Amino acid sequence: MDSANQKNGGFAKLLDWINKLGKFKDEVVNIAKETKKIGKDDPRRIIHAAKVGLALTLVSLFYYFKPLYDGFGQAGMWAVLTVVVVFEFSVGGTLCKCINRGCATLLAGALGIGAEYLAELTGKTGEPIMLGFFVFILATGSTFARFFPYLKRRYDYGILIFILTFSLVTVSGYRVEEIIELAHQRLSTIIIGAATCMIVSLFICPVWAGQDLHILVASNMEKVASFLEGFGDEYFHLPQGEVDDANTSKEGKLFLQAYKSVLGSKASEETLANAAWWEPGHGSFRFRDPCNQYLKVGALTRQCAYHIETLVSGYTNSNKQAQTEFHKIIQEPYSKMSSEAGKLLLELSSAIKNMTHPSSIVENHLHNMKSAIDDLKSVLQTSNHSNNNNKSNLLDIIPILAVGSILIDIIHSVEKVSEAVHELSNLGHFKKMEKQKSTTTFAPEKIQQKLHKGIVQPVNDNADMDVDHVVIEIRDTSKEIIHQENNGDTNKKQGQQQVEV
Amino acid sequence: MDSANQKNGGFAKLLDWINKLGKFKDEVVNIAKETKKIGKDDPRRIIHAAKVGLALTLVSLFYYFKPLYDGFGQAGMWAVLTVVVVFEFSVGGTLCKCINRGCATLLAGALGIGAEYLAELTGKTGEPIMLGFFVFILATGSTFARFFPYLKRRYDYGILIFILTFSLVTVSGYRVEEIIELAHQRLSTIIIGAATCMIVSLFICPVWAGQDLHILVASNMEKVASFLEGFGDEYFHLPQGEVDDANTSKEGKLFLQAYKSVLGSKASEETLANAAWWEPGHGSFRFRDPCNQYLKVGALTRQCAYHIETLVSGYTNSNKQAQTEFHKIIQEPYSKMSSEAGKLLLELSSAIKNMTHPSSIVENHLHNMKSAIDDLKSVLQTSNHSNNNNKSNLLDIIPILAVGSILIDIIHSVEKVSEAVHELSNLGHFKKMEKQKSTTTFAPEKIQQKLHKGIVQPVNDNADMDVDHVVIEIRDTSKEIIHQENNGDTNKKQGQQQVEV
Repeated sequence: MDSANQKNGGFAKLLDWINKLGKFKDEVVNIAKETKKIGKDDPRRIIHAAKVGLALTLVSLFYYFKPLYDGFGQAGMWAVLTVVVVFEFSVGGTLCKCINRGCATLLAGALGIGAEYLAELTGKTGEPIMLGFFVFILATGSTFARFFPYLKRRYDYGILIFILTFSLVTVSGYRVEEIIELAHQRLSTIIIGAATCMIVSLFICPVWAGQDLHILVASNMEKVASFLEGFGDEYFHLPQGEVDDANTSKEGKLFLQAYKSVLGSKASEETLANAAWWEPGHGSFRFRDPCNQYLKVGALTRQCAYHIETLVSGYTNSNKQAQTEFHKIIQEPYSKMSSEAGKLLLELSSAIKNMTHPSSIVENHLHNMKSAIDDLKSVLQTSNHSNNNNKSNLLDIIPILAVGSILIDIIHSVEKVSEAVHELSNLGHFKKMEKQKSTTTFAPEKIQQKLHKGIVQPVNDNADMDVDHVVIEIRDTSKEIIHQENNGDTNKKQGQQQVEV
Repeated sequence: MDSANQKNGGFAKLLDWINKLGKFKDEVVNIAKETKKIGKDDPRRIIHAAKVGLALTLVSLFYYFKPLYDGFGQAGMWAVLTVVVVFEFSVGGTLCKCINRGCATLLAGALGIGAEYLAELTGKTGEPIMLGFFVFILATGSTFARFFPYLKRRYDYGILIFILTFSLVTVSGYRVEEIIELAHQRLSTIIIGAATCMIVSLFICPVWAGQDLHILVASNMEKVASFLEGFGDEYFHLPQGEVDDANTSKEGKLFLQAYKSVLGSKASEETLANAAWWEPGHGSFRFRDPCNQYLKVGALTRQCAYHIETLVSGYTNSNKQAQTEFHKIIQEPYSKMSSEAGKLLLELSSAIKNMTHPSSIVENHLHNMKSAIDDLKSVLQTSNHSNNNNKSNLLDIIPILAVGSILIDIIHSVEKVSEAVHELSNLGHFKKMEKQKSTTTFAPEKIQQKLHKGIVQPVNDNADMDVDHVVIEIRDTSKEIIHQENNGDTNKKQGQQQVEV
């Protein structure tokens, strides 16, 4: 029995051990998967890690080899320290820290020498008291200065290094001459470290914060746009109640969730804008990036996302009943409002991405958006007057009407986005598109606008067709063309309907 | 003429100089004003600055006095460096950096010695190559590890210090025995610096991140609540168009803008929650703060703020026409919905602030909120059937109906907030209110709830009165009492109306 027990015990232990090994293997596999995902999401991360390794190895070896070591002595380690602390993901972040560190060290070193000199004058007993007093006053004042929003945004790291260097210099216990020698050494090693970082950061696959901001703003617009484009189909083709389940279960509906990440993007946009402030002109960004305008476009896009959030919770909260008669009446204007707003945003987003002036198609979508609102109004008016008796209870249609009202709000926000993007394209000196120019001579924007302002005329239909033609030229994915063509059809249908009204 | 010109020139220069002096004075006054404002907004900032000054002075003097200086040598400066870099505003932030720094130094030091030992084995020529290789691999790997969200949140600073210490140890050029001596010195000075920071941070006016999170979440709820409480008056008492102007011009309307800061509060809530993770139990927070639940409540509150944003842009965008007949019909239910939601949130917020279980008044407001929705429905039903001819065009009332629909969404969100706060009060072991208990024996919550679920009965009116009585006992500002009493009156009125319907 005992031996059997022992055997069993041994067997159990073995099983346990295999089990643990399996779990450990799972853990390793999970980590490997996550590592792969993080690298795949943004391959620049792998390059960044290698860049840090390279800069650090360069500085380390530079410092390790005897001749240099003898030259700089222990101060050489400041070069290593500088590289580790200063190297950031973006060029702007790295430059910000390098410049802050250099200037702060210089300033604090000079002040520290002055303080040391003053303290020496007071004699042996007075010196530590004076030094302690200086350190306290400067550290307290500088720490408080870090709470000023403007200083925090630009010079937070500089102030930190200022306090650090000043304290180190004043309490080093050296005489003034020795300190000057030390300060010289420290400054030169910091410059070596900072220069290494700047060179590696600038010349090996640079990551520009300004460009990241540019891409972030454009992709946020795209996320909102893809929601708006898909919303009409989603809202009308599915029975109302299933929308929410569909979002979570089907992968294809993920685009309806993408806008959620826009809601909380304010902080990352501001961080990028702060880093971008330090970056020199580069690539297509010849002039200082109009960061503030990007932030404005970003904020307006976020406004759309807030409205979408309300839209979604409105229609998921609404009672899950079958589609009413009324549903069918407003389907067309709603779908048009939403999809036109989406297409407009997509157009604006691609204008930002390609750094071109928004094409005349934008004007067209703007017009379509507004005419969709008019369509809705006339549809409602008609339904109000003619089939008042047929019409379902006011109570049942409130959630549906609310969706319309929020769609109108979204359209107003999208209009503001459009204005801001136009301003951005001027401030950023975006290039004009050639293909657009050729269209412009054919059907000038302003004339088109004037035409659109009046009631629908036959000329309008032609203008619509011209613009649709341009779309097909510019965007070449077949899916897009189908989309746009379908849209062209609905436009015409809508136009006819409006004439009928 | 020349002398006159010269005189004029001199005079102009003097004027210019006085002008510049004046501008400089203005600048100084402005800075002084901003300084005062920053200090007044949060006086803990001044205390924090003084705490940093104190810790730094202590460590500096400790390092300056000869006996200690001889003991630790140059390594003593690491104590100063540690204090400057590690001291954060909150206890949690400081502890996080101290622990990260200590552990990372220990680990990297040990690994560095191992690497140095291995490299020494390869001989004079192989050593720098091996060391460079080690530094590159470790720096690259660790830098990449900083992109893992979990590591970034908790151990970002530790990884940085790990890279730093490893590089410094391996390239120091010392033999292994010397390094052990150096590592010992560095570790003990870092411990001195970190200990000073921790003691000053913990025992002199500690700033708890957990408490800040607690206050932030509660005050965000308050901001949303004050908007909702004021919204009804604002929406109905002013002609629609003037609402926006009033917001910007009158100081008294500032509470209608306060909710805007809630929209972008996600980042600060998460930072505080991360710092709070490191804090030990303190004060009334005996157990680990249920940070995640706070984040959940915060997120749900933000959801309300998103809806409010849509609400505001909806009614500022709507056509600025005189109040319609319809406006008057829905005034009462709208005002009640909004103000009850506001009062409920205020009650929940004060429950969080006082760390008590939400009182039974919450149930009451929850009931009132729901009954306000029912009121609205019956009002709409009546208006739909009876005065269909009188009723204005569907088109005109869409924005008004949309406001109602969004208010319903807000109420649903507030209900979720209420659930989350109840959960929080359980997780956080909030104390039960004694006064509430006495009411509970008088009119038990569950019975009350059951009563409320049915149609309005005379018993209900009594229960309402009881609860109002409790309110007067708990909250003692006279304004609150008036508010609550008024509410009691409207409750009764509403109840009567409902019976009439």
